[in-house]
This record gives sequence, C-alpha cells and structure tokens, in this order.
Amino acid sequence: MSPLSRRGFLTGLSVTAGGAALVGCSRAVEPAAGGAPQEGQIDQVAVETRLQDAIVPFDGVHQAGIATPAQAQLNLIGFALVEGVDRAGLTRLMRSWTEDSRRLCTGETPLGSLEPELVTAPANLTVTCGFGPRVFDVIGLPEQRPEWLKPLPGYSLDQLDPKWGQTDLVIQVCSDDPLMLSHATRHLVRSGTDYARVRWMQQGFLNADGARAKDRTPRNLFGQVDGTVNPREEEAFDEQVWIHDDGPAWMQGSTSMVMRRITMNMDTWERLDRTSREESMGRRLDNGAPLTGEKEFDKPDYDATDKYGLPVIDRQSHMFRAKAPDDHPEQKFLRRPFNYDIAPEPGSEQLSNSGLVFLAFQKDPVLQYDPVQKRLDEADRLNEWITHIGSAVYWIPPGTSADGRGRDAFWAQSLLDDA
Amino acid sequence: MSPLSRRGFLTGLSVTAGGAALVGCSRAVEPAAGGAPQEGQIDQVAVETRLQDAIVPFDGVHQAGIATPAQAQLNLIGFALVEGVDRAGLTRLMRSWTEDSRRLCTGETPLGSLEPELVTAPANLTVTCGFGPRVFDVIGLPEQRPEWLKPLPGYSLDQLDPKWGQTDLVIQVCSDDPLMLSHATRHLVRSGTDYARVRWMQQGFLNADGARAKDRTPRNLFGQVDGTVNPREEEAFDEQVWIHDDGPAWMQGSTSMVMRRITMNMDTWERLDRTSREESMGRRLDNGAPLTGEKEFDKPDYDATDKYGLPVIDRQSHMFRAKAPDDHPEQKFLRRPFNYDIAPEPGSEQLSNSGLVFLAFQKDPVLQYDPVQKRLDEADRLNEWITHIGSAVYWIPPGTSADGRGRDAFWAQSLLDDA
Repeated sequence: MSPLSRRGFLTGLSVTAGGAALVGCSRAVEPAAGGAPQEGQIDQVAVETRLQDAIVPFDGVHQAGIATPAQAQLNLIGFALVEGVDRAGLTRLMRSWTEDSRRLCTGETPLGSLEPELVTAPANLTVTCGFGPRVFDVIGLPEQRPEWLKPLPGYSLDQLDPKWGQTDLVIQVCSDDPLMLSHATRHLVRSGTDYARVRWMQQGFLNADGARAKDRTPRNLFGQVDGTVNPREEEAFDEQVWIHDDGPAWMQGSTSMVMRRITMNMDTWERLDRTSREESMGRRLDNGAPLTGEKEFDKPDYDATDKYGLPVIDRQSHMFRAKAPDDHPEQKFLRRPFNYDIAPEPGSEQLSNSGLVFLAFQKDPVLQYDPVQKRLDEADRLNEWITHIGSAVYWIPPGTSADGRGRDAFWAQSLLDDA
Repeated sequence: MSPLSRRGFLTGLSVTAGGAALVGCSRAVEPAAGGAPQEGQIDQVAVETRLQDAIVPFDGVHQAGIATPAQAQLNLIGFALVEGVDRAGLTRLMRSWTEDSRRLCTGETPLGSLEPELVTAPANLTVTCGFGPRVFDVIGLPEQRPEWLKPLPGYSLDQLDPKWGQTDLVIQVCSDDPLMLSHATRHLVRSGTDYARVRWMQQGFLNADGARAKDRTPRNLFGQVDGTVNPREEEAFDEQVWIHDDGPAWMQGSTSMVMRRITMNMDTWERLDRTSREESMGRRLDNGAPLTGEKEFDKPDYDATDKYGLPVIDRQSHMFRAKAPDDHPEQKFLRRPFNYDIAPEPGSEQLSNSGLVFLAFQKDPVLQYDPVQKRLDEADRLNEWITHIGSAVYWIPPGTSADGRGRDAFWAQSLLDDA
C-alpha cells in the first residue's frame, strides 16, 4: 500500500470541501470535550465530519448552484406569488430570502430562526433563485422582460402535465446532506409564506459525496454517463452560460434556467441488450466514451463507419442529435440534471416512477436550448423510453455581495430598485 | 494545526467504511489511467471515494440493516403477494431476493443484470426482509405464526390511512448513496415482479455520511436528537432485539419490525419557543441531554424539581412517558427512524409534508412496543404536533450464510423448507 501523507490528505479534503477545507480542519481539531486531542483521534474526526464545514461561497458575480459541481441532493421548488404581492412585496421577499440563504449556506442561523442545531453543517448547500415570465408583469416592467423568457414552443412528443408547469418563482436548493437540504427548504418556504406558496417540489439526487470521484460525470438511472459535453472552463461558461452583453445593467452576470421533467420508462428500457442501449446514446455504458473512442472525453468521430459501411455513431443516437451543428456552435448549454425515483402513482402500470429533473442553464434558451430539443424531439432514439412531462423557463438573477458593493445586495435588487 | 498521520487517517476511514477500509485503500491506489500514481494523488482518490467500497457484510446470524448504524437513505417498500403465489412461489422469491441482495450489498452484479456500472459502490447498502401476518396463511402454516404477528391494537389518536398499512412483505433498503439505493430498489422490485407488487414505498433520510460524526445520535425534523436510549452493546441487543428462545429453530436469530408512519406538523411546532420544545421532549435541543443533565447520555433524574417544586422533567414529556417502568424493564426496543419530507398533498394547508418513518425492532411488539405506545398515546405532550398515519408489523427472519452451513442460505429457508 502506498503511503498516505498529510499533504495528500489535505489535497483530498480540499477537493471535497472546496475553499472550506482549512476551515474544516481547524474546526475538526477542537475536541468536543476539551483537552489536548490525540493524534489519531483528530484525524478520525476530520475524516468523519469532512462535510460539516464544506461551504460553497454564497456571494459572487453569479449565483452559486450553477457552476458548482452538482451536489448529491436537490429540492427544486416552484412558487406562485400570493395575490396582491407587488414590486414592493417581491423586493421584501428577495431581501429576506437572500439574507436567509446567505446565512444557511455559511452555516449561520438565519435571523429569527429557533433551529440553530439544524444549520451547523451546510454540506455544500447552495440556494439559487429564478423568476418566471409573469414576475415582470407583477413588478410593472413587462417591457423589461427578456425576449426569451416565455414558454418553450412545445414539441411533438411532449406530454406536459400542468402540475409540473411554469411558476412565478423557482428556488433550487442543493446540498450533499439530506437533513440540511430539508431544513433549508423548510426555512425558505416558511419565511416566504406571506409572499409565495409552493406549487410543486421536485426532489432529485446523484451520488453521495464520497461515492463517486468528483471529476467523474454522474450517471442517470438508465446507467448512462450524463453531462460529458458540459462547459468546464471559465471561458466556456462565459460563452454558454453567463449573460454579459450590451443589455441593461441588471442583466449582467445573470443566466436562464430551463426545467424539463422527463420520465424514464425503466420497464421497457431494461428489455434492451447492452448494445442497443449504447447505440441509442452513442456512448459506451461503462465509461461514457463515444462508440468511436476509448475514454469519456475522446472526441467522437461521426464519420467513422463499421465493416458494413454504417456509421458507428448512429445518426439518430441521442449524442448525434444533441450536438451543436458546425454552423451553429452556440447550441450548447450547461446540463445540471438530477435523478428522481419516487413511489409509482396510484393505478400506474409501471414498476417504478423515475426519471430526470433536467435543468439546463444558458444565456438564451431560444437560441441555445430550443434547437437542440427540436432535433431530439424529431428523431432521438431515446424518445422510445423517455417523455417530457414538465416544462418551465426562468431568469436567474446575477450574484450578490453581502454589503451590496459593486453587486446587488439581494437577488435582482438592481431590477427591482431602479429599472 | 495538528499533524495528520497515516495511522490516524486509516483509523478515520475504518470507522467510516467498517471492515472495508483496507479494501477501499487498496482499490483506490490503482490509478485509472495506469502508471505509478503520485503520492498526493492517491490520497485524494482515497478520501474522495471512501464510500465506494464501504460494505456491510450481508450474511450473519442476524439480517443486516438492524444493528447496522443507520445509513443516510431509506427506501422501505411494502409488497402485496401476487394472487396464487404459494409456499413454493414464496420460496423462489426468497431465494432470488436473497441472492440478488447478497450480490448488490457486496458490489457484485446480480445474475442476469445488465447494469454492472450501477452496483460498483454499495456505500453501506443493506437489504432487510420481513413477513406480514398473512404470509403464514399463504404458506399453509397459520399455526406457526408468532402470537405477536398481528395488527397493533389501535391507539386513540391514530389516524391510520390504509395506504400506509400492513403488507405481506416488506423490504428495507438502506444506503449512504442515493443512486445505489435507487438501483437496488429497482432491481429487487423488478426481479420480484412475478411474485410481489409494490403497495407503498416510504423514502427517508438522516445525515449524509460525513456530515455528522458516526457516534452522534441523528436528529429528526423538529431538531430533536432521536434514539439516545437505543441498545448499543451486544448484550442489550440480545435482551431487547434478537429472538433466542425455546421456540422453533426457524425463529432463532430473528426479530420483529414495527412500522409507524408519523406526520409532524412543522407549522404548529415552530410556533413554540425553545423552552416549550425542550419541555415537551424532556431533553435539551442542543445536545439531547436530559433537562436534569449536561450531556446526551447522562441519566435523567426524574425526581428533580425546580424552585417551584415542579418536576424538571415533565410527567407528560415524551421521554418520561416512553421510559420503561421499573417493574417492566422489558419495555425497551431499538428505534431506527428516518425522516421524510415530501411535497405537500394537493389541497393540504400545511406548508410541509414531513415526519418520520419510525421503525422499531424488538423480540415481541406486544410486550415491548405496545405498552410504550399506549402510554404515549394517553399523554405525550408531543401528541399535539405528531399524528400516526401508518402502521404495520413484520417478522424479520434470521440472518443467512452464503453456503447455507449452520444458517439459512436464503431468508426464512428453514421455515419454508421444513416447518
């Protein structure tokens, strides 16, 4: 066995906990019962509780929870504004939700909360807020609504259920700890109740922290590696995700979220052999490599043919249909999907009720997301096993700073205050 | 900062991963891309993926998932036997579920499964199986049914919803990884489908691995430390949980599970100040200490009075009502509850839909669980905020061994084969 050094150990922690690794270690070495801790004892605490102090900075140029590596757990909550709430009311809500979220995400008890015990371990908690189209009417600024902030055009295979439809507001709560996730959700629902009521809550998951190396792409419940082509470098995020243009100041640093709830029919999917499963995707199941390659990030060779002269990557595979055409390189976006798996609806004949809470982030859903979904809707082999049952589009305000210097002090402040 | 040694690091891992720590390390040092790994790199992988090889032994004198420290995630699935399934059919189901579970829990692909990628990281997966009362009729052995395997008597405050009621079979799937949990559940539901169909699925959670030190008692969504008085030593398990008596051979090493689904009304609970919250429980919120003590495991002093001569621990507090009376020391059992928090039912006026999937394990629910629940039903202060909405009782067969030597090779083999 190779030696495990202090340096390496810390390296590992810092990957897990991001910038909070040192905080984590310094807290972990304070023994609960006082007195000088033993050497082994310290390490044990550090490893066992390494998520406790894992903090994703709440403030920044952009909201957290987008470029943040996807956490293990998601609560996506769609809210309807209470009748009569106007720009002043929404401003109060944004101020209080931002302040509460900032505290929750850094492990501090929100003002007025009587549950300090439940906020001690954020475990990479992020809270991300978005506005649906109607909000611009509510605040009396319909002319400011971004062109693209409207329902997606509808696709031929959609079977949209209104219960998973557009809402006025959305809050994306993500954490690596399910108890923290639950408490943060509860706190925000409660603190917002005079202004906004829950219309739906979509719960999702990926691997737990520690069950998959952080640099591995997550899998969906079909076993497919999902998210290989995502932007990873800052430059790609600037190209695909963050709005920095000649538009109004309140838009700078913002983005959009597309929510698609997608059921996956496990019962029929599992009748396929592995070859058919791989062909429908265009990628290998074991490591996500394109069928023309060896490793996940190998560039797919769409011109490669097999001994019969047929394309190795099928023209109707998900991968082929989803890729941006050479003359439309802008048709790319950030996928941040979470799996769901809940009890079957009463009367359902399917053995499971599972699928994806598919979240896509891009500057402009009309230019970037819609053409891709059109191509998939027309001829993606996976359509035989998946169905889109929910759809919504949100504007995701820019990031914040605690003192309001150079950035909004609360979500959408410069839209709500000055526009 | 104190030094972090190799020894200490391994100590930490071994707590997390149980017996699998060394396996974890030895796998972790195989670099994915070949070649000699760098020192820091190894550690990083070991820390990041420490759950991947965390395995709870499937076989043993007792089923796993009972004395096992509670994992982060629960799927509790109630099954109805398909009409016409008899003793032979149930035997086939038990054989196949046991074999599949043994493989899933050790990270091996079950026979016939086409999803090897989804079973590589059990993350402390356990699968625990139980029989409802009707099974003894189905297998033609009603006279063998344990006396206590029958519905609980019903309590005055129960508001039982039949949709969370007794089923023929129960499978408790627990893991620290939500994806593994989902796949294991799916696999068992699918592989059992000719014999048993899902009637309900109850999903629950505690803290993620790494978000709470393993020796800390979990909290419920009221913020209360929940499970302080649980058995911890083998002796206490033998006294309270494991059946070892002069009954039939097939019973030895088995136990019973009581399932109670308990809603918790967060909206009214949160109107209480902290003092009232603590008085209703009899324990402090911060560390779970009895109100007469300083630390969680301090012995409560039920005779202590305050300056007004009133008992410090209220006679109607949950703790006082739940404790075994001096003349009935047998009224103790193992609590293994999980929190739930799902979307509110349509039309519900409550902001949240949360509570407990309360699981209790004991030799005899009539002698051990029922009297406690009777006292709680009569006068537990917590009753103002909680309601029991589901109830079931199961016999949990003894543990197994892979080769069937000295123990059943599959769940309930000696009942099904020989009785």
